[in-house]
Order: sequence, then C-alpha cells, then structure tokens
Amino acid sequence: MTTPDIVTAAVLVIGDEILSGRTKDQNIGTIADWLTGIGIDLKEVRVVPDEEPEIVGAVNALRAKYTYVFTTGGIGPTHDDITADCVAKAFGVGIDHDPRAVALLQQIPGMVLNEARLRMARIPNGADLIVNSVSKAPGFRIGNVHVMAGVPKIMQAMLVEIAPTLKTGPKVQSVTIPAGLKEGDIGTPLGLIQKAYPAVTIGSYPFQDERGYNTNLVVRSRDTEALVAATNAVEAMLADVREQLSR
Amino acid sequence: MTTPDIVTAAVLVIGDEILSGRTKDQNIGTIADWLTGIGIDLKEVRVVPDEEPEIVGAVNALRAKYTYVFTTGGIGPTHDDITADCVAKAFGVGIDHDPRAVALLQQIPGMVLNEARLRMARIPNGADLIVNSVSKAPGFRIGNVHVMAGVPKIMQAMLVEIAPTLKTGPKVQSVTIPAGLKEGDIGTPLGLIQKAYPAVTIGSYPFQDERGYNTNLVVRSRDTEALVAATNAVEAMLADVREQLSR
Repeated sequence: MTTPDIVTAAVLVIGDEILSGRTKDQNIGTIADWLTGIGIDLKEVRVVPDEEPEIVGAVNALRAKYTYVFTTGGIGPTHDDITADCVAKAFGVGIDHDPRAVALLQQIPGMVLNEARLRMARIPNGADLIVNSVSKAPGFRIGNVHVMAGVPKIMQAMLVEIAPTLKTGPKVQSVTIPAGLKEGDIGTPLGLIQKAYPAVTIGSYPFQDERGYNTNLVVRSRDTEALVAATNAVEAMLADVREQLSR
Repeated sequence: MTTPDIVTAAVLVIGDEILSGRTKDQNIGTIADWLTGIGIDLKEVRVVPDEEPEIVGAVNALRAKYTYVFTTGGIGPTHDDITADCVAKAFGVGIDHDPRAVALLQQIPGMVLNEARLRMARIPNGADLIVNSVSKAPGFRIGNVHVMAGVPKIMQAMLVEIAPTLKTGPKVQSVTIPAGLKEGDIGTPLGLIQKAYPAVTIGSYPFQDERGYNTNLVVRSRDTEALVAATNAVEAMLADVREQLSR
C-alpha cells in the first residue's frame, strides 16, 4: 500500500455561550462524523470566546497547521458577531459589504435590510460565499478557512454546500469489537497487538451496563488488509483471556 | 466596585474517539456549567488526539495562559491511555507507580492488580491524587493542571473532589431576556447599549420556534448595579422597537 495523501482539519467554535455553559455545543460531533465520513481527519477542536485576539490567534494557528479549518458561530447581525472581521484580520485583508451577499439578503421576503442585517453581508476581500439554503445570510471561505453559522440547522446546510469543494483522502475504516471484558483484563495483550500492527489504531473505550464494566475495542485503519489482520488478532486475544478467566 | 480577582480556566479533552465522532463529548458542557457556578471563567477548550506531541503542547500552552487547566480522558489501563505520561513530560518530571495510587487500586474487591491495571497508578512525581469515588483509579493534580477521567460519571465525581481546593472569583450574574423579535431588528440599538455599558457583556442568541425567528438576549456581569441598569436599557429598547414595528 502506498502512503495515502492524508487530509486534515480543525474545528474552531466561537462563542461565549458555549464557554459559559448556557448553550451546549451540538456542532462538534456533527462535523466530526461528517469529516470521518468523507475521508478527512479531524485533528483538533478549539472553543474560544467572542474576543478578537483569541479568534485571530486561533484562526492563524489552525490554518497554518491543518489542510482545512471550519469555524462555527459569530456571523449574525449583532455586536457580538465578530467572526468575519476577525478572519479578515487574521488573513490581513480588508472587509466590506459584499454585493453578492447583499443580493442574497435582499432575496428574503419582506425583510428590511437595515444596518444590523447588512452586517451579515460583511465578507473579507477575496472570499467565496457559502450558500445558506435555510436563511440566506451566507458563510464564506477564504484560503483554507470555512466560516459557518453557529445555529446547527444552518451549519449543517452549509456543510452540504461545502462538501463538493473539498479535497478528501481515503476513508478510515473501522471495526468495533464488544470485548465482554474489563479494560484492565485485556490492557497488556491489547498493547502488544497495537505494537505488532502499526498500520492500525486500536482504541479501548470502557463503559458500564447492567452487568458491570465492559469495553468496546475500535480498530481503525485506511489499510483494509491490516485492519482485518489486527481485528482477527484482537478476537483471538479476547477468546484467550475469556478462557483464562473462566478457569 | 473594585476590580475583582478573575480566575480563569481551560478544558483539554483528550481522545481520538471524540475527533472521529464515535463518542460525542458530554464533559465540556458539564465543566462549563460547573465553573460558571463557582465563579471561574472558562476561556478556552481544546480537543486533541491520543498523540504525545499534541497533548504535551496543549498542556503547556494552556497551563501558561490560564489559572487552571482541567483535562479529561486517557488515564485508563490500555496502551492508548497516555495522558499521565504526557503531563509528566509537559512538566519535565518523572513518572512511576505511585504507592498511594497502588493502595487505592488494591481496595477494589476481587481485582487482580495486573500490569495493565498498575498503569492506572502511574502518577507524575510531585502530583496530588484526585479521589475517584466511583471506581477508585485516581486522577491527579500537578501545578495548576487537574487530570480527570473521560467517563462522564467518574469525571463528575472528580469535580466534586476538586471543588474545595480551587480559588474562585466573584460569580458572573446573568439575566436572560426573551426578545420576541428577530436579531436583525434589534442589532443596531443593542450594539449601542453594549457600548454604553462596558461592565456588562450582552450576548444575542437567535433561535427558531413555531412562530418563526426569535432571539434570547443574555446580559452578564459581575457588577450587579451595571447588570440591572443594562437590563433596564435593553427592556426599554425592546419596547421601543416593538412599538415601531407595530406602527
């Protein structure tokens, strides 16, 4: 197998309301599932407050490190919506009312396009718009950074628009194996299997059900052959440990 | 009002399973609510994979910037549980089986203390243990970093243990005002109120219900007098806008 061209991503959640606990984030899990499904590795998530230096710093750190950055939140019509201005600052470009965005806002039936609403047409110079099929006010892409709404339904509609524009890599395949054993009973042999199969990543996730502590093992890889071999090795190990413990 | 002594915090979630989307994080919201409730400002959250350089880098960045850091995940008995070793590395201290942690693990009835389980007793030199009232295997505190389990029930039990040890600041008080108006109709006057009352932070959160788009306004401050004055100003503004729109 040749080394695949891995595509990586970071998510940047912007908003005081997530950090205060008032709003429980629903977007991180959605984006994580979506990226995994299209063959992009989500490598980092950050949540930052509605403060310019924090947003600018995070945008610049993440866009330098990963193939793509996806931001959520802070693109509405109120004073606390500062994401577009911060992204312009991070890229060192100007920002103004974008005629394409103004035209989209004008499509909203019966809407008075006042000063506040025009704020949603402020787009950094050089950015492409991301269509918002739910409520018109667009997101945008500049460089490798995709700026999306924070409202989950709108954010999800924007992901649909973004999908065809992204470079994707080979998908990670995964097998989940319910161990029926406690983590502590399998930790040592499982670690040896991980060492023997470096092309897979084995995760061990404990949980508790009515019968007590149990473990899900997840084997992940882009290499099908290695995935099958490691999964077989894990199954054999589990059978061994079960037999030892039943003696 | 004198400037209060603000106490800040960051949360570091460690785990591939959150980034792949397999597991949906439940701890960020819990810790955010808990910190707000005891008067500590959560200023940043990061999620990183089970990779040493990423964990070490995040621990060092966050502990230098905030009063406290709280980590979740990666302290179990399997090969992918590398948080304790990474935190030791971040602090430049050694790590070994800690007799206090071994003694706690020995309290588990009927438990064979094998090599894998002893991994849960690996604690960086100089750390204090954080009691785990659910399943014994302890967390630990070193410097301003608190290392906790990822399983929500165990993480929550650890928060209870940590609470009395923390320095806390004056609590942020908040008032939520259902606007009954769209964000775009109030954005401009709301921004003027924010400017007039710099001791408060006003957040504007749109939502959709059966009657269409609506907005919750949240006024937050540590200064009760400013909070009341700004809240009154917001209420008066909302009445004005409603009247104008009904003409």
